[in-house]
Amino acid sequence: MSKPRHCLLHALLLAAACTTAHADEGMWMPSQMPQLAQALQKAGYTGDPSTLADLTAAPLNAVVRAGGGTGAFVSADGLVLTNHHVAFGVIQYNSTPARNLIEQGYVAAGRDAELPANPDFRVRVTVGFDNVTEQVLAGARGRKGRAYQDAVDAAGKRIVAECEREPGIRCSIAAMYSGSDFYRIRQLELRDLRLVYAPPRGIGNYGDEIDNFMWPRHAGDFTLLRAYVDRQGRPAAYAPDNVPYQPPSHLQVARTGPEAGDFAMLAGYPGTTFRHRTAAEFARQVEWTLPARVDVFDALIGVVEQAGRHDPATRTLYAAQLQSLKNNRKRAAGELEGLRRSDAVRRRAIDERAMLAAAPRSEARDIAALAGVLEQAAAVRERTLLLGLVTSQSQLLRSALHLQRLRHEAGKPDPERESGYQARDLALIEGMLRQVQRRYDPRVEKALLSELLGRYQQLPDAQRLPELDAAFGRDAGALAATLDRVYGSTALGQEQVRLDAFAAAREGKPLPADPLLELAAQLLPAQLQMENAAKASEGEQLRLRPAYMRALAAWRNAQGQALYPDANGTLRISYGRLEPLQPRDAVHYAPLTSVAGITEKHTGQVPFDAPQPLLDAIAAGDFGHTADPALGTQTVNFLTNLDTTGGNSGSPVLNAAGELIGLNFDSNWEAVSASWWFDPRYKRAIHVDMRYMRWLMEKVYPAPHLLQEMGLDGSSPL
Amino acid sequence: MSKPRHCLLHALLLAAACTTAHADEGMWMPSQMPQLAQALQKAGYTGDPSTLADLTAAPLNAVVRAGGGTGAFVSADGLVLTNHHVAFGVIQYNSTPARNLIEQGYVAAGRDAELPANPDFRVRVTVGFDNVTEQVLAGARGRKGRAYQDAVDAAGKRIVAECEREPGIRCSIAAMYSGSDFYRIRQLELRDLRLVYAPPRGIGNYGDEIDNFMWPRHAGDFTLLRAYVDRQGRPAAYAPDNVPYQPPSHLQVARTGPEAGDFAMLAGYPGTTFRHRTAAEFARQVEWTLPARVDVFDALIGVVEQAGRHDPATRTLYAAQLQSLKNNRKRAAGELEGLRRSDAVRRRAIDERAMLAAAPRSEARDIAALAGVLEQAAAVRERTLLLGLVTSQSQLLRSALHLQRLRHEAGKPDPERESGYQARDLALIEGMLRQVQRRYDPRVEKALLSELLGRYQQLPDAQRLPELDAAFGRDAGALAATLDRVYGSTALGQEQVRLDAFAAAREGKPLPADPLLELAAQLLPAQLQMENAAKASEGEQLRLRPAYMRALAAWRNAQGQALYPDANGTLRISYGRLEPLQPRDAVHYAPLTSVAGITEKHTGQVPFDAPQPLLDAIAAGDFGHTADPALGTQTVNFLTNLDTTGGNSGSPVLNAAGELIGLNFDSNWEAVSASWWFDPRYKRAIHVDMRYMRWLMEKVYPAPHLLQEMGLDGSSPL
Repeated sequence: MSKPRHCLLHALLLAAACTTAHADEGMWMPSQMPQLAQALQKAGYTGDPSTLADLTAAPLNAVVRAGGGTGAFVSADGLVLTNHHVAFGVIQYNSTPARNLIEQGYVAAGRDAELPANPDFRVRVTVGFDNVTEQVLAGARGRKGRAYQDAVDAAGKRIVAECEREPGIRCSIAAMYSGSDFYRIRQLELRDLRLVYAPPRGIGNYGDEIDNFMWPRHAGDFTLLRAYVDRQGRPAAYAPDNVPYQPPSHLQVARTGPEAGDFAMLAGYPGTTFRHRTAAEFARQVEWTLPARVDVFDALIGVVEQAGRHDPATRTLYAAQLQSLKNNRKRAAGELEGLRRSDAVRRRAIDERAMLAAAPRSEARDIAALAGVLEQAAAVRERTLLLGLVTSQSQLLRSALHLQRLRHEAGKPDPERESGYQARDLALIEGMLRQVQRRYDPRVEKALLSELLGRYQQLPDAQRLPELDAAFGRDAGALAATLDRVYGSTALGQEQVRLDAFAAAREGKPLPADPLLELAAQLLPAQLQMENAAKASEGEQLRLRPAYMRALAAWRNAQGQALYPDANGTLRISYGRLEPLQPRDAVHYAPLTSVAGITEKHTGQVPFDAPQPLLDAIAAGDFGHTADPALGTQTVNFLTNLDTTGGNSGSPVLNAAGELIGLNFDSNWEAVSASWWFDPRYKRAIHVDMRYMRWLMEKVYPAPHLLQEMGLDGSSPL
Repeated sequence: MSKPRHCLLHALLLAAACTTAHADEGMWMPSQMPQLAQALQKAGYTGDPSTLADLTAAPLNAVVRAGGGTGAFVSADGLVLTNHHVAFGVIQYNSTPARNLIEQGYVAAGRDAELPANPDFRVRVTVGFDNVTEQVLAGARGRKGRAYQDAVDAAGKRIVAECEREPGIRCSIAAMYSGSDFYRIRQLELRDLRLVYAPPRGIGNYGDEIDNFMWPRHAGDFTLLRAYVDRQGRPAAYAPDNVPYQPPSHLQVARTGPEAGDFAMLAGYPGTTFRHRTAAEFARQVEWTLPARVDVFDALIGVVEQAGRHDPATRTLYAAQLQSLKNNRKRAAGELEGLRRSDAVRRRAIDERAMLAAAPRSEARDIAALAGVLEQAAAVRERTLLLGLVTSQSQLLRSALHLQRLRHEAGKPDPERESGYQARDLALIEGMLRQVQRRYDPRVEKALLSELLGRYQQLPDAQRLPELDAAFGRDAGALAATLDRVYGSTALGQEQVRLDAFAAAREGKPLPADPLLELAAQLLPAQLQMENAAKASEGEQLRLRPAYMRALAAWRNAQGQALYPDANGTLRISYGRLEPLQPRDAVHYAPLTSVAGITEKHTGQVPFDAPQPLLDAIAAGDFGHTADPALGTQTVNFLTNLDTTGGNSGSPVLNAAGELIGLNFDSNWEAVSASWWFDPRYKRAIHVDMRYMRWLMEKVYPAPHLLQEMGLDGSSPL
C-alpha cells in the first residue's frame, strides 16, 4: 500500500508511529494488483499493473515453485534461477568425494553436461487459479466444529482428485482470509530438472549459519537449473532424450543494477503469517506463548547439556536435537524481542477496538464466538505445549506412540485413516523408527521426560488427563519410578524389536508385550481425545474467522486501504524499494554490499573461505560493466523493504521496468517478528544482486553460453 | 600533523593510501605544540598553541595522573574528574553489602559527606619536566650492552633520589625517542582523595565486558573525586581536618556539546606504543609473534577447558586464568587482524627503505648494529615466549622459582638486589604465595607445563639450555615422568610449607628439602643466564636506537613532518575531530550515540541493567538544554579520531575553545593494532559526552551544588 494511505490509517490510530515509517507492508494476491495500480505507479513501477493480475500469464507465470522455495524462468529454453540453498539437494545429489560439486561448484559446458537432479525435486508452474469457495463450503454450511472441518476437508479432497485426473497436473486447495475464500490451484509438475550452473559453497553459502539473518551480507546464493520434458512437451521423469521445456514466458535479467531508493517488486510463495490474528492472540503470543517457549527450551537445553557434560558419546547422539532446540529458542526470543520493540500488542489492540466499534452488528455474534473458541483453546495451552514436546523431543516414547497409533488406524480403510498413517506414509514411519539408534540415549530421554512431565504434573486439575495421571502418578517420585521401570525393561531400544512391532502395527495386529508399548497404549485414548478437541476448535475457527476478516476488510476499506490475506504458500506480490536499515542507535547499514566485504570477512576457514579465483578476481578489480557506477565497485547483495517470509527463498526481484535485478534469499534478524507484525523500521529482505551473478559468470567461473542464452552477451549496458 | 603534510609523505610512498584518509596520528609532547601551531589552527583550534607548550602551566597543569589513568581538575576546590573505571577501587573501598555504592552510585550531599578513598589511591600533579639527558648518559657513553644499561639505571636512580628529597614530591625518569633523550618528571603527590559523585554501575559500567572495545557505546564512565591537603596546603594522608586542594588551574566544562566534524583535543598519559619500531620488528610481530601467541594461547585454553570439562571445582580454580588467556588471545588476534588489514608490514618497510636511503652515513653503523642486536634476540624468540609462559601460567612452579630467586638475591645489599626482590617487594611475594591455594590444581598445572615444555623440547639445540634438558629430559616420556615425580611428592601445595620456605628465603637461608624447590634450584642458573642476555640486549638497543630515531626524525623532517616519541606514560597531546567510523563494508557508525541506545540495550540483566530512574528519565524525555539541538535528543558518548592508547583512560577532551566536552574511556576494537600502526580509517577513541554527565547531575541523580561549583548553574547555554 502507498505511504499516504498507510499513514492515513495510522494517523487516526497512533499518530506518532508514522512520522519516519515507510509503509510497504503487504503480500498481495495478483488479483489485487489492479486495485493497487495508483499506489504501484506512485512507488515507481512503469509497467501496466493490470498485467500482474493473472498468475497464469506473463510475467507471473515465469515465477514457479522450485523445491521448497521459489524460482523463475530466465530463458526460453527452460533455465530456472533459484537459490543455491533451494537447489542444494540437487548439487549434493551430483556430488561424490571425488567430484565434490558442493565445494567446487559446477558449470555445465553444454546441454550434454547438465546433470539430472534428485528424482523427487520438482518445479511447479501455476496454470490455473480458480475460486471454488461455493463448492468447498456447500457441505459445511450449517455444521459446526469438527463436522465443519471434516466437510471442508472432504470437499477439498474431492476437488483435488477430480482436478488431478489431468496428466502432469498437481492440484491443491488454498484457504484465503482464514477460510473466507477457497481457491483451486492447478500446477504443471516438471519432474526432470538438471543442474546447469552452481557457484562453489564458498560463494553460494558464504557465511553460512554465522551470517544467517545478518546484514551486511556477501553470499552468491543462486543456482541455475533447466527443466526438461518429453519429446511431446509433457512433464516426464528424467530420460536422456527429454528436451528442454519451453516456458510460457521468462524474465529478462536487467543490464543495469539498482541504487538505494529504487523501486523493487518481488513475486514468490511466502509460507505462513499471522498478521490478521486477533488482539487476544497477539497478546497471548507475546505475554504467554513466546516467553513459555523460551522458558521450556531453556530448560530442555539445560537437560541435554548437563547430560552431555561428562559424556562425549551422548553429546554426539544429541548434537542435532540440541542445535534444533537452540534454534527454536533463538527464534522465539527474537520474535518476542521484535514484537515488544514494535509495541505490537498494544497497537493491534487499538486497531481491533476501532475495527469492532465500526463493525456491522451482523458480524458481532460470530466474532464474539471466535473469541470464546480461542479462549477455550488457550485454557489448555500449558498442556498443549508440554505434551507436544513430550512427543517431538523423545525418541523411544514417540516411536511407541506412533506404533500404537498406526495399529489403531490400520483397522480403517486407507482413505479414512488419519493423515500421517496412510499407506503413503509408512516409509516415513519406518525411517523414523530406524534412525532412533543414532539419536537416543535412555538417560537423556528420561531426563527430558522428567522435565516435561514434571511440569505437566504441576498443572491444575482442569488441564490434566486421567490417563496420564494413571500412567505417571501425581508427583516426582511416582514419575521417576515409572520412567525407571519402563526404560529399564523396554526392548524397544533395539532396532529389530521396533521393526517387528512396525510389521505387526501396519497390519493392525497385536503388538509385542513391552512396557513402553503398553504405556503408549495406555496414553492413546488421551491422545485421541486431545486431537479431537483440537480439530473441533480448528473447525470452529475456520467457520468463525471469516466474520472477523470481513470486519477487518471493511475497516481497512473505510481507511482507504486494501487487505491482503495472510501468507499461505500461494503466489504473492510485494513491492517497495531498496532501503537502508538503522537497526540500533548510531548504526546505519547501507542497502548495497560490495566485494570488499568478501575480502574483509575471508578467514580461509569455513564458512568464510572465499575461493581463490574469487579473491584473485576481486584483487584484480576487473568489474567492467557489472560494476556499480556510483559505488565504483562490484556489488554483491542488496536490501529492500519488501514483505517476505519463509518460502520466499528464490523469489525474483524486479525493477520498475519489470526486469530481474535480484534474487531473494534471506531477511534480517530484526525482522523475525514480521510473521506477526510488519514494522517498516526493521523489516528488510536480503537479495543477491544480479550484477554479482553476471560478473561471476563473466569473469570468475565463466559461462558465456548461458549469459548469451539469458540475453546477456557481456557487452556494455549502454 | 595536518592532513596536507601527512599526505605529502604518503604521496611519495604509497600514493593510493591517502585519498580518503584523515591524518591525525600523533601523541605529541607539549613542547612540540608551538611547532604545530599552524596545523592546530587549521584543524580548528582557536586558542594560543604556545600555551600548550608548558605542562606545568594552565591548561595542562589541570591534567593529572589519577590512579592508573588520567584525570583533570574541574573546579577551584580540587574536584577531579576521571573515569568510573579508574576510580572503581575508591568506590569499592567505600561499599559494603549494606551500602553498596558500586550498585547504587553515590552523591555526596556536602563536603562532610565526601568519603575517603583507599589510602593507596594517588593523584599526581606534574610540577617539573626537565631534560636530564646529559646527566643520564654521561656515565654510559663508551659502554656497551648490560654495562650501558646499568650506567643509565644508576644515573636515573641518583637523580630520582636527589629529586625526591623535597617533601610531597615523586620523581621519575622518562626516556624519549627510545633513549635519545631523558627527562626528569617532578610530580606533587596528593594522597587524600575523596569520593564525591559516582553514577550507579548500571550507568558507569553499562555494557561492561560485552561492550568493551565496542562502538556504539552507552556508558556514563565518569566519577568525581576531590583532592585534599593539610591546612598548610601540603600533600598529606587522609585526616578529618584536611582542606580541599586549590589546584593551580582547572578546566571549564563546556556549555554546548560537540557535533560531527568538530575539532577535539585530548591530553593524557598514554602508556606504551611501538610505532617507531624497525621494519624487521614489524615483520616479526605480524609474521611470528602474534600468530605464535594466538597459537600457544589456543593450546593453553584447550588444556584448561579440557581439564575443567568434567570437574566444576577445577573450573572455578582456573576461571580467572582462563579468562585472562582468552583476553590475551583475543587481543593478539585483534592486533594481528588490524596490522594485516592496514598492510602495516609492507608500508613500514617501504617507509624505512626510503628513510635508510636518505640517512646520513654517520648513522649507518649504529643502525646496522641495531638490526644485528634485534636479530640475535629473535634467534631465541620461541624459547623466550615458552619459558615466559612457564612462569606466568604456573602457580606452584612459579612459587618455587620466586623462592629460590629470593634466597639468591637476599645475599646482596638491598639496593643491589634485582628489582622485584627488594625489601619493598616482600609483601607482594608473600601475597602471591598465599593466593596459590585459590588458583591451583596439580593436574592442570602438569597439563599446562606438559604443553609448554613439550613445545620447548621440540626446539633446535641452539635454543635449548642444558639445565632444562637435564631437569625435564629430551622427550615426552621423560617430561611426564619428571612432572609426575615432582608434583607427586612436593609439599609446596600446602600454604604453610610455602610460607616457611619464604621465611627462610628472605633471610638467604637454605630452603627445606622439597622436589619442586630442588627443581627450581636446578633451573635458577639458566634463568639468570637468560636474564643477563636479555639485559645486555636491552642495553644495546638503548644505545643504538637513538641513531635510528635520528634518521627517522630527519626523514620525517625532510617531508615537512614532525616526529612524536612513542608513548611512555608521560603527558601527551592529541588533536583531531569527531569522526564517524566505517568498520566494514556497508556498515556506518555515527559519531554520537543517544539515550535511545540505552533503552534498546536494556535487558534488566547485568551488564545491561540501566537503573529505573535513568529509564524513567529517558522515557520522560526531559533533556532541556543538555539535549543535542541537531539530533533532538540527549547524547551519551561520542567518537573521535584522537590518538590514544592504554593509560589515556580519563583523559579530558577539549573543544576548539579549550573547554571540556568529553572524557576518554575506551577505543574501538578495530584500533587494537594502533599500538603499532595508526590507521586513520579505523583508529577511534570513545568518550563520555559531558552533556550526558550534566544531564545525569541535573535530572537523574541531581547534584546542583556540584554543578554550581563547576560553573554550571543549570541555566540555558545561551
